[in-house]
Formats: sequence, structure tokens, C-alpha cells
Amino acid sequence: MSELRRDPLTGGWVIIAEDRGLRPSDFGSVAAVKRGGFCPFCPGSESTTPPEVAAYREPGSGSNSPGWKVRAIPNKYAALRIEGELVREGDGVYDKMRGIGAHEVIIESPEHHRHMADFSIEQLSLVIRMYRDRVSDLKKDSRFRYIQVFKNHGSVAGAALDHSHSQIIALPMTPRWVKQELIGSKEYYALKERCLLMDILRQESQQGVRTVYENEAFFAFCPFAAKFPFETWILPKVQQNDFSLIQDGQIPRLADALQQVLRALQRGLEDPPFNFIIHSAPSKYPKEGYWITIDQDYLWHIELIPRLTRIAGFEWGTGCLINPTPPERSAEFLRQVLEEGAPPTGKTSE
Amino acid sequence: MSELRRDPLTGGWVIIAEDRGLRPSDFGSVAAVKRGGFCPFCPGSESTTPPEVAAYREPGSGSNSPGWKVRAIPNKYAALRIEGELVREGDGVYDKMRGIGAHEVIIESPEHHRHMADFSIEQLSLVIRMYRDRVSDLKKDSRFRYIQVFKNHGSVAGAALDHSHSQIIALPMTPRWVKQELIGSKEYYALKERCLLMDILRQESQQGVRTVYENEAFFAFCPFAAKFPFETWILPKVQQNDFSLIQDGQIPRLADALQQVLRALQRGLEDPPFNFIIHSAPSKYPKEGYWITIDQDYLWHIELIPRLTRIAGFEWGTGCLINPTPPERSAEFLRQVLEEGAPPTGKTSE
Repeated sequence: MSELRRDPLTGGWVIIAEDRGLRPSDFGSVAAVKRGGFCPFCPGSESTTPPEVAAYREPGSGSNSPGWKVRAIPNKYAALRIEGELVREGDGVYDKMRGIGAHEVIIESPEHHRHMADFSIEQLSLVIRMYRDRVSDLKKDSRFRYIQVFKNHGSVAGAALDHSHSQIIALPMTPRWVKQELIGSKEYYALKERCLLMDILRQESQQGVRTVYENEAFFAFCPFAAKFPFETWILPKVQQNDFSLIQDGQIPRLADALQQVLRALQRGLEDPPFNFIIHSAPSKYPKEGYWITIDQDYLWHIELIPRLTRIAGFEWGTGCLINPTPPERSAEFLRQVLEEGAPPTGKTSE
Repeated sequence: MSELRRDPLTGGWVIIAEDRGLRPSDFGSVAAVKRGGFCPFCPGSESTTPPEVAAYREPGSGSNSPGWKVRAIPNKYAALRIEGELVREGDGVYDKMRGIGAHEVIIESPEHHRHMADFSIEQLSLVIRMYRDRVSDLKKDSRFRYIQVFKNHGSVAGAALDHSHSQIIALPMTPRWVKQELIGSKEYYALKERCLLMDILRQESQQGVRTVYENEAFFAFCPFAAKFPFETWILPKVQQNDFSLIQDGQIPRLADALQQVLRALQRGLEDPPFNFIIHSAPSKYPKEGYWITIDQDYLWHIELIPRLTRIAGFEWGTGCLINPTPPERSAEFLRQVLEEGAPPTGKTSE
């Protein structure tokens, strides 16, 4: 079983997995595994994965057999396991707890070669609905403090399989970067009695220079302090702190915004590797501390980062990233791709 | 000129560089530049770099000409520039300041193909001495709050040139990950009146399971909450919060410890890409806030991370890294390499 260990200097937790790798080849092989050949996520391979925890299916099709549109399964190589008690222990200056949590995979489509940017709005809406359903279900487990939905696309971004999929990890603690964001939002609210992310949304909407796309329910933009070239955030236009509060009527609008952003990246930047992460308020269990948000002080959102740059020593030492592309330029480029359906030829105006 | 922008959610600063990259090929080319061909860091190329700020030279050799052993120059592609006033500005919810700072390169040896692990103790001592001299000099500039010494080795770790070199960046703010570490150390000191890193050193020394190497002045070990496989820290055995306080007598001992750790990695793991970063107390200018350390509550140290694993969406969303190799296993492996001069054959005992 894996172990969660706390860094006594920073307070951050690390997941020390069960003994998986020792030689350099052990790490490379994680990404290379099964490329090209057999795919455990394709219809017909259902028996090679752990039994599904949820699926949207054609009427009449049975569990763990073909006929599904979106399928949720436990991760076969789970970083954290759902079975067992959450035991906390000290060892001198150190703190650790058992690797209790949940680690699921959402197989987003039965089609092996379909890029998420090319999903229909219906299919993308089913994926978002599955995210919501699984998060809502995992929230019932009182051992879990934070539930993270994320997607890795491309081996550089950490995807081990080509078949389009996302992952959900439920954690027994609120991770430190999430805490910072929640505390930052609470402090702003305490000062202004306004939601920081709503203020950002308003300012971005007025200034327009970093806007990528918007529809009636969602707003996509490159953030002012973008850490990466073409980093794009998608914010709901209504006050919702928790992603699992998303309403049925919002889902196709989020699917539309996400599709547009993914298409701009795929078409403008030659299908770059990327990660996206849903940032959301933590679960509201007692003792979780002062970073529990109230509805008014935080907005769940999606942060999408193309993985075009390398993280070097300076960035790892400081947390201060160097972004070679100003977000105003990134946004202008992505808007042009959406308008013209292809990357702009030649140098852009600014 | 580049710009420092503050992320209003997390409080972290990002360096938005002057417009450098827009197409995917723009990012790849940064790492590929000049590999194989002409090297601006080799003796005889001195005129192709900015004029040196310091050099240790053979008697009689002139500035910016061959005859140097270690050479410090401004980075030609500097992320921050030393000229100008530190102007701070707001823009609605956002905060920014001009990209003022310093960005230097330490060319560690005149020999193009020499790996740092194969430097003599004398050469490595000169490199460490140059780090100290440059940090001490940059500390005199009251605009700078934090000075970061780091090294990138291998293109995966962000090195743009093969010729062995390190970098120093002076920042007009204390970066957020450094602050967290300093605050964690201060809180521990407030509670215990002991230095957290000294307590870690004592516990590691007693337990021994994560020890990699030690000599009379330095202790190298894989940290309890290691974020990466084979991550190794080197701590001084005397209470020093600021790296620039290192004494002449300590320098060859640090060179010895660093050489041993670098050799274990190079020989055991097929010369992996790596970063190392010197963590040190910030400059003591007024208004810098409550993370200024006193001598007794912090220990400068080197954190060295081989870059064998990928950082995926979960890690970027949470700051919670998944390490597939327990540090006890990493340390055992590195100790065996140092004892046997080569990677252990077959599976290790545990």
C-alpha cells in the first residue's frame, strides 16, 4: 500500500507509491506501455480492466460489456486505494498516513482514435456529466477531503495510454496548492466582500485582451499571471464554488466552451500535449479548517495547460515560473485560430 | 523588458518574459540551439558572451580572454535585467512590477565535455567559491530580496547548452515556495526552539535508512517526503541559514559531498538529467516580512532532483507529487553504487 508523507518544511504531502521503479528504464516504460498494440480501454476489452463503477450505456447492454458511451473504472495502477482505515502516524519530526483515497479512470469515448477536441457536444456533455456524478458519489465518503478531476493528453503530459481518458483522485487531505488558492480567495472576500474569481471574470470581460472564447454560461481566457504559454482558464458565469453543483442546463455550454478551447489548441499548435484540472471547493467535512469556502468566495473553474515548455531548476526551487509568451499574445493567437479555423499565417499584429 | 506578475489567487509571482515564443517550434528550439556546433562557453569564445562579471584566472591572463578556470557572465537571454528602477503597478485586481533582477551564468570549467561529477575537488571548490562570491556581491543590491543558485543538466532538465554551467537569479521578491519553507521552519522553531532542518539531520543520521553519504562537514540523504525518485539533499552540519556564510574550510568538504552524490547518480542511473538548487535564507532588507530567518531557525542546503518522472495534471493541480520510488530504496541504491562503483546487479535486498 502506498503512503502519504508530509514534507515538514513546506507542509505539502507527497504520495510515496508502492515500490514501482528503480532503474531509469522503469520510468520510461510507464509512458511507453501498450502504445500501438492492445488497448484496455476499447470496447471488447472490458474484462481486462477492474469492474466499472459507473457507465452510460445503450439500452439493453450489460455491465462490463460493450455498448457504453462513457465508462468509469478504478485505476488498475492506483496511487491511492479505497480499502482500509485512514491511519495517521508520526515518526520523530515526520508525519505520514496510509495511502487511502480513490483513483478512477473515466474512459471518455468508445472510439480509440477520437481526440477530445473532435467529440460531439453530446459526447463531451456525457463526459462532464460523468465527472459530476463520480465527484458527487465520492463526496459521500467522509474520509475524503478533496476530489480532483484531471486529464493528461500526450505522453509528455503524463498520459500512459492514447485512448482518450480522464482521471479522478479523491484525497484524505486538501493539497497545499489548492489551500493557497482557497485562502487567497477567502482573504480577498474578507477584504472586499466580493468573489475574487468573479472580479477577475468581470475585469477580463471588460478588458478583452486575454479573452479566448465565451458563451452565455462560460468564459475562457488566458490568465494575467499565466505560468505557461497558452494556459487557458474556463470560468462559469454564475456563483458556484463546487464543481458538483453544475446544473444540467450548464453542461452543454461547458462542453461548447471546452470544445472551442481544445480545438484552438489542437489546430493552432499541432495537437500539443496538455493537462486540464478542475479546481473546486473541498468537501465540507468538520475539522477541515479555515480554507472551507462559502458559496460566495470561490468559483470552481478549469485550468488548461499546454505542455510546451520545460520546468527547470529555477522554477522547481522557487515556484516562480518563467513564461516566454505573454498571455495577451496567447489569447490573440487562439482567437485567430478560432476565427480562421487554422493558425494565423505570418506574424500577428502586436 | 520582462514583467513580474502576481497570481491573485495563490500570491505567487510569474516572470512574463519578453515576447520570445509563439509557435510550438519556438519552444523546442530553445533547448536544441547550438548543440554539437559552436559553443559560446568554450575558451576562445569569450567575445561572443556578455563581458564577464568575475573570473578565476591563470596569473597573467586578461579579462574576457582564455586562461580562466571558472567564469561568471550575465545571461545573454536574461529572464530579468539589472538596469532600471523597480516600478510596481496595479491594474484592477492585478499587480505587476518591472522585470528587474539579475541573471548570471557560471561557466564551471573550460573543458567542454567534462561532466560536473568528473570535476576534481579543486575545480568543484572553485565553482562553489564562485557561487559564494556572486551571491555575496548580488546581496549588496538593496532591490534584491532573494538570490537563487541552480544548475540544470540535460535538456529534459532545461539545460540549453551542453557545456557544464550553473545559473544565479536575483529576484525583487521572495518566491512563494521559499516563503513556505521559511515559514514552516520559523513555526517549528517557535514551538520547539530548535532548528527543523537540524532536527531532520539528527534523525536521519540516527535512522540511517535514507543516508546517501556523509563526511565531517556535510550530510547527504534522500528526504522522507521525497517528491522525486533519487531526490537527494545535502545539509551542512553547522548552523548556517545563509549559503553565503559558508567558510573556506567547508568548501572542499561540500565539493566532496556533491561529487559523491553526482557520481552515484551518473554511474547508477546512466547520467540522468537533473536540477540542483541551493535553498538559502533571503536577503535581510527591511519590510521583507516575517519569513526573515534568524540564524538558529534555518539551514541552507542543496536539493538535487534527477528528472526521471513526468509531472502530470494531478501534480500540477494539487502540488501533491506521486513518487514511485520510496526514498529508503533510492538511498540504498545510491549507497550501493558508491560502495561498488557501479549499479548493483539484480534486485536489491529489501
